[in-house]
Amino acid sequence: NSMVSEQEDSKHGIVPFGGSAAHVKTPDKQILGGKGLGLQEMSYVGIDVPPGFTLTTPLCQVFQENGDLPEEMWRQVEAAIQRVEQDMDRKFGDPSYPLLFSCRSGAAISMPGMMDTVLNVGLNKETVEGLAKATGNKRFAYDSFRRLLDMFGDVVLGIPHESFEDKLKGLKAKVGVQDDIDLTAEHLKELCDLYEKVYDEHGKEFPHNPMDQLKACIKAVFGSWNSGRAIKYREVQGITSLLGTACNIQTMVFGNLGPTSGTGVAFSRDPGTGKAVLNGEYLVNAQGEDVVAGIRTPEPISTMEKGFPKAYEQFIRNVHTLEQHFKDMQDVEFTVENERLWMLQCRSGKRTGQAALKIACDLVDEGICTPEEALLKVEPDHVKQVLHPTFSAEALESAVYKENVVAVGLAGGPGAAVGKVVFSTETAEEMTKEGVILVRETTSPEDVGGMWASRGIVTCRGGVTSHAAVVARGWGKPCVVGCDDIDVDMKTKTMTIKETGEEFKEGDVISINGSTGEIVRVAIETTVPALEGEFGKLLGWADEVPDVCRVMANADSGADAQKARDLGAQGIGLCRTEHMFFSPSRLPVVRRWILRDEGLEQVQEFQREDFREIMHVMDGKPVTIRLLDPPLHEFLPHSSEINEKLSKQLGYDDSQALASDIEAMHEENPMLGLRGCRLGIVREGLTAMQTEAIIHAAADLIEKNNDAKPYPRIMVPLIGSVAEFKNQALLIKRTAERVKKERGIDVPYEIGTMIEVPRAALVSDQIAGVTDPEDGKRLCEFFSYGTNDLTQMTLGISRDDAGAFLQVYKDLGIMEEDPFKSIDTEGVGFLLHLSAAKGRMVNPELSLSICGEHGGDAASIKFFDKVGLDYVSCSPFRVPVARLAAGQASV
Amino acid sequence: NSMVSEQEDSKHGIVPFGGSAAHVKTPDKQILGGKGLGLQEMSYVGIDVPPGFTLTTPLCQVFQENGDLPEEMWRQVEAAIQRVEQDMDRKFGDPSYPLLFSCRSGAAISMPGMMDTVLNVGLNKETVEGLAKATGNKRFAYDSFRRLLDMFGDVVLGIPHESFEDKLKGLKAKVGVQDDIDLTAEHLKELCDLYEKVYDEHGKEFPHNPMDQLKACIKAVFGSWNSGRAIKYREVQGITSLLGTACNIQTMVFGNLGPTSGTGVAFSRDPGTGKAVLNGEYLVNAQGEDVVAGIRTPEPISTMEKGFPKAYEQFIRNVHTLEQHFKDMQDVEFTVENERLWMLQCRSGKRTGQAALKIACDLVDEGICTPEEALLKVEPDHVKQVLHPTFSAEALESAVYKENVVAVGLAGGPGAAVGKVVFSTETAEEMTKEGVILVRETTSPEDVGGMWASRGIVTCRGGVTSHAAVVARGWGKPCVVGCDDIDVDMKTKTMTIKETGEEFKEGDVISINGSTGEIVRVAIETTVPALEGEFGKLLGWADEVPDVCRVMANADSGADAQKARDLGAQGIGLCRTEHMFFSPSRLPVVRRWILRDEGLEQVQEFQREDFREIMHVMDGKPVTIRLLDPPLHEFLPHSSEINEKLSKQLGYDDSQALASDIEAMHEENPMLGLRGCRLGIVREGLTAMQTEAIIHAAADLIEKNNDAKPYPRIMVPLIGSVAEFKNQALLIKRTAERVKKERGIDVPYEIGTMIEVPRAALVSDQIAGVTDPEDGKRLCEFFSYGTNDLTQMTLGISRDDAGAFLQVYKDLGIMEEDPFKSIDTEGVGFLLHLSAAKGRMVNPELSLSICGEHGGDAASIKFFDKVGLDYVSCSPFRVPVARLAAGQASV
Ligand SMILES: [Mg+2]
Ligand SMILES: [Mg+2]
Repeated sequence: NSMVSEQEDSKHGIVPFGGSAAHVKTPDKQILGGKGLGLQEMSYVGIDVPPGFTLTTPLCQVFQENGDLPEEMWRQVEAAIQRVEQDMDRKFGDPSYPLLFSCRSGAAISMPGMMDTVLNVGLNKETVEGLAKATGNKRFAYDSFRRLLDMFGDVVLGIPHESFEDKLKGLKAKVGVQDDIDLTAEHLKELCDLYEKVYDEHGKEFPHNPMDQLKACIKAVFGSWNSGRAIKYREVQGITSLLGTACNIQTMVFGNLGPTSGTGVAFSRDPGTGKAVLNGEYLVNAQGEDVVAGIRTPEPISTMEKGFPKAYEQFIRNVHTLEQHFKDMQDVEFTVENERLWMLQCRSGKRTGQAALKIACDLVDEGICTPEEALLKVEPDHVKQVLHPTFSAEALESAVYKENVVAVGLAGGPGAAVGKVVFSTETAEEMTKEGVILVRETTSPEDVGGMWASRGIVTCRGGVTSHAAVVARGWGKPCVVGCDDIDVDMKTKTMTIKETGEEFKEGDVISINGSTGEIVRVAIETTVPALEGEFGKLLGWADEVPDVCRVMANADSGADAQKARDLGAQGIGLCRTEHMFFSPSRLPVVRRWILRDEGLEQVQEFQREDFREIMHVMDGKPVTIRLLDPPLHEFLPHSSEINEKLSKQLGYDDSQALASDIEAMHEENPMLGLRGCRLGIVREGLTAMQTEAIIHAAADLIEKNNDAKPYPRIMVPLIGSVAEFKNQALLIKRTAERVKKERGIDVPYEIGTMIEVPRAALVSDQIAGVTDPEDGKRLCEFFSYGTNDLTQMTLGISRDDAGAFLQVYKDLGIMEEDPFKSIDTEGVGFLLHLSAAKGRMVNPELSLSICGEHGGDAASIKFFDKVGLDYVSCSPFRVPVARLAAGQASV
Repeated sequence: NSMVSEQEDSKHGIVPFGGSAAHVKTPDKQILGGKGLGLQEMSYVGIDVPPGFTLTTPLCQVFQENGDLPEEMWRQVEAAIQRVEQDMDRKFGDPSYPLLFSCRSGAAISMPGMMDTVLNVGLNKETVEGLAKATGNKRFAYDSFRRLLDMFGDVVLGIPHESFEDKLKGLKAKVGVQDDIDLTAEHLKELCDLYEKVYDEHGKEFPHNPMDQLKACIKAVFGSWNSGRAIKYREVQGITSLLGTACNIQTMVFGNLGPTSGTGVAFSRDPGTGKAVLNGEYLVNAQGEDVVAGIRTPEPISTMEKGFPKAYEQFIRNVHTLEQHFKDMQDVEFTVENERLWMLQCRSGKRTGQAALKIACDLVDEGICTPEEALLKVEPDHVKQVLHPTFSAEALESAVYKENVVAVGLAGGPGAAVGKVVFSTETAEEMTKEGVILVRETTSPEDVGGMWASRGIVTCRGGVTSHAAVVARGWGKPCVVGCDDIDVDMKTKTMTIKETGEEFKEGDVISINGSTGEIVRVAIETTVPALEGEFGKLLGWADEVPDVCRVMANADSGADAQKARDLGAQGIGLCRTEHMFFSPSRLPVVRRWILRDEGLEQVQEFQREDFREIMHVMDGKPVTIRLLDPPLHEFLPHSSEINEKLSKQLGYDDSQALASDIEAMHEENPMLGLRGCRLGIVREGLTAMQTEAIIHAAADLIEKNNDAKPYPRIMVPLIGSVAEFKNQALLIKRTAERVKKERGIDVPYEIGTMIEVPRAALVSDQIAGVTDPEDGKRLCEFFSYGTNDLTQMTLGISRDDAGAFLQVYKDLGIMEEDPFKSIDTEGVGFLLHLSAAKGRMVNPELSLSICGEHGGDAASIKFFDKVGLDYVSCSPFRVPVARLAAGQASV
């Protein structure tokens, strides 16, 4: 397997770490997984990790293909175990003081809660007694054993966790205690027997042989790669590049050996705000899973400083070392076993958008990394999040907000959300369009779909590193966790405020503030923040990467243009002024022109006004104006709207005549009908009118202010042949020159075309080369790829109608990505490459760009950068993401 | 100019012919025009032609570009005139015995009546007296002069011919004669004065200087190239390749010098039937224009044998020489001047389809040319004509026919037509869809549009070589000419049968028999003839050309398949069995399946039956079956058809529910929606059902007859990606193999795909290369290019909606050809080339073909042959044309 042989030290598929393990020369995250890599790197920089070994991802592939693992591998596992036994001076399965293992999954991309873990592997009726004796803690030994029985049953054999929980509850009721901690060693021993009965009840058997346990666990980890929830998570996240998961077998160390032990998780910086303060949680006498699963609400990490000062000091040093080594904020797990610190895991920490920006900037300020390296630490989603709604300062100060806070929990994920309360994933998915907030006692991996479908998440239990909070922050969703003020009843679908008894039913609207943990009983207005501070700084770095693909915006009005400029757009790449035709005062005028061919000059006035405003806002930057594109019938009333009044207004004697004129304009396939440049060619006066409006608007600005620098670029849509372009371009040029002469004002302008019909891509050399017969100069100064239409036509798929089959295609794996979201590189991308090559062959100065949805998609921008485009244009709101993606693509 | 310099002898742009003229080394029709070439070739083979010279087509281009001709050229014209003067021993403009010239246009493609001619150039008040003295025929001299005045005024100066006619009529009335011939020399001299007054009335002047006359005529000829009617003719005929017209200046010889002179036109074989008998007309004491214009009805050529035996004998020799030289049937014009024969023009004669086939076969039989040469003498239109309607033998024998013949004229163009009588070009064009027959006193070039719009043509005057007949035969339109039995009144729009007074008004239906000249007062049934005799022989030669692109047919039923087989199709290239879903007994079943998912097995039964029938008819030949392609809503009732009964029939409780289900299936752009393979992928069971039906049908035939050789090819439509094809191909293969196993019958079959989505063309290598993971074998055995959809998507033009702009595009010259008629070679053709190369690179054995309208278009077939396709498929009726075109393309 080529993937393995590249990794010199891991070509056998099993890679040791910790203790005496040699460092891997070229550690590869794809092969080792994130967790495995972290363990390698930690031992490399001299940090104590419990020794163990990683079964690499190619073995997961082997398992997926064969449903089993080869004998040869098991012999290597045994050798790896022996190495650990020597380092730890204990033996796996040794009844006197057994070495125990954890068995954890770990893919190259962190998938929280998605993959399964089994702890305490190696315990059985014999070794549990040895552990009890060796640790002098029988209660601990049996607690460990019952945890193994539970997890093994659940994860490996598919026995529902609830079956074990029922026994635990029954026992607690029987002995009359509230908390697990109050159960004695004997109780737990009894519980182990009860758990073994659960196996019997499910017709299963617990393997008492430690090696059998380990083998079963490894297979379960590899098997979990294709569990439904793992597949769902990858689908939601669009993860397609992974080989599989690695499986990490690691010596167990115990945080639950008593008061000198403990366990914790921490972020080296605040994952919510990005502030450079250690942010962690710690539980004394507990095992790590307790923290992550949110079963017990942990204490802040400062607790550890008091109880375990030496371990804490070491921990701080470790965290610092890791940040320097990885040049990034770290998310770590650790255990203190009898006052000795062991690091269990480290990885780049998930963070909110705000935190990502601050951390990136701080790392540069602290000299830890360069601006370009920092750029790569910010994900497009982070930028999206920062643009996500929050409650405005005024809203937060208002009485309506303050007086309606009904509960406060922990701030699990910053931001604001307003939506209808729902209590299950199913309902969340069903009602997603209405905007929902998912309220759960606690979330588990099964809830991933519902969380994705929700605007915000609330849980009653769990801390800021609980599943709910981690996932929510990853997605930039506001989240309130560990909200003890509320009770949730799944059966009656009710959320109750404990103190007042106030009830919220499914569908009731609430607001949540993920930055403060507050829950508000009414809808509070949200706002979107502007570019500022780190945000602007970081995107500035992105803009400055050499040879970066510039970012412009699609804007149809002065307001849009202003937003685009505010968000850093370097011009307008697509202005579709016909969008403004729909305003109530204009629509009747536009309709009269369409139907009766009257009042073109009034339409021109509207356009001139719009263009003036946009060019004023964008002064000094290019404004690319597309000539009228949509089929004219899009502006006409629907048959149900036709009445006598409307008919009179549009200059008809009766509604019958109007209806019949509208009917005559019906098209079978309007997308491929009379639109784009076809309108300009067929409809008398249209192109001249628009050109006049543009040049007049620019001249108006210059007339008013001599320093004004309007720069219109006139773009002809839907060109399919050089003859079409030549016809329109000459008309535009003659008109523009005439207006300039009439006004006596020199307006600089460009003429170009959209390339969005496949044929245009094929004859791009002709289009780029066509000249004005009068002066011999080239007519086309730019191409802008209209990737929406180009995708529709190249794939033969109408976006409006694709809903009926695209989901099936994704489910069947026939299509991996929605081609309207991320560019289809093989088909549409080929045409783009071909057209760009043909165009630049004829005219090396030809400006090439994208307008359309793909212009704001990070993956697509990477491709466009490779093609060598000059700029992308996307909606103003997506400009920051595009700037980041463009910068990253060029680093 | 490169066009000229290639033509060594004509690089100065003026080429002499006749008399002492040297022969051009490489005569080029594009440069000399058809008429100029004929004159060159005739003098080359030793035939007497009046000497003269040709102004070549590049000079026409010079004229079009500059609106004038260079001085240098006029000096060359003078030199050319001197050469002729020496040969004829007379001088141009010599008052004692002037040399006169004709000035005629002549492009590379004959455009009858389209270009203008002026005769007797060189006459004026002085020279006319000289001519009178020299010929001793004053009447002739003034007749010639008044003709010059008329033609020059009309053609060069735009004075309406009618203005001169009015003077002629007035004079005849004044002197009390009926016919022109009865006017004396003095009358004609007076007429010349009257004609000069017409010039005055129109503010024009007749140039008495002969050289001025000639210059003006030459400019008029070149100018007429872009006259409205010439442009119209080229548009109708799709002529785009010409450089312009040449202009031929030729010594005038006179057929109207008296009883020892005459003029005639002849075809070396019968242009209507193709029989090898000289077919001509002759007029004593007349000038050629009289014959062509149909002003006087001429006598058969046998008249000439009696009156001019020596000239006739020479004429017969000339005709024979020309046929041998040009290897084709000749259309000649000649004049006898005082018993001396002069050939004025020769060209390949226009002929009916039937004649074209017979002549081609006869020329081979007579050893004049080879079968492959003969093939090139038949045009696609000829084949279409032979397939055009005629009256069946039974209809011709019937009483209803015989008793309703109301008039008989000359057989101007064979075939039968039934339609509504119209009397003007405008009305013919307006009513063309209703089917019209144009009835005119005589036709002129202005009527070309109306003739094109009509099913048949009737004229009262003119012979079988009159304008009407020549144009009609060229287009294969039935035509009755010189029908003296009827009167036409344009004002009252009435055709009256002279003998009975029976009147036919605009809109009355008549039938005409262009093979007999009969006009019938009622509609007579028409039939289409089958392949037989020369037709079969010729197409057989076409099929046998080495490396010819084969021809298959599109057929959706057994009857279609039978027609296809009868017309020589080598298989079915496209079977769209869903066309049969619309039959009344099936539609409800299909609709229930679509809407309620019930009764798929019944639908399968229909399909199985259809497939069995088609494969039975095509036994031994491939039958390519396309899986269901159209959007399912195409089969559903329109909202206006929905009622309670229909709803119940389709299994609905009420029509509201049905309407809402139908509404839910509405698509914005159905062409790019849920159709083609997307149906097969999304709709459970569909592809398996169709595959079962196909394989079962084939197995049924084999079961019934062990010698049966059904050969289905299963074709997946609308593939855009390799994943789509793989999904469907594996489903088809597994299903087919299962059915074969179940039946215990080995059915050979192929799996392939349509390439009709642009993206499929771009990834054709992947599609051609995809394999079955079970046996490693390739899944795709053929590509069939669906050029209809491929054109729609590549050009972004919906054929249904293109009417709104394609005509404007053609008018503006933005599009030369309808891309749905003739393949767009630059765009769609590029994709086709690319896909074919990619496919064959992966699999050199890959079968490549066309299905779609372009498969029957001769121009497109030429392109497909170059691409190297294996076959084209077209509608059965177009198979013969396609076979011819394919054969010609490969010669
Ligand atoms: Mg577009
Ligand atoms: Mg198709």
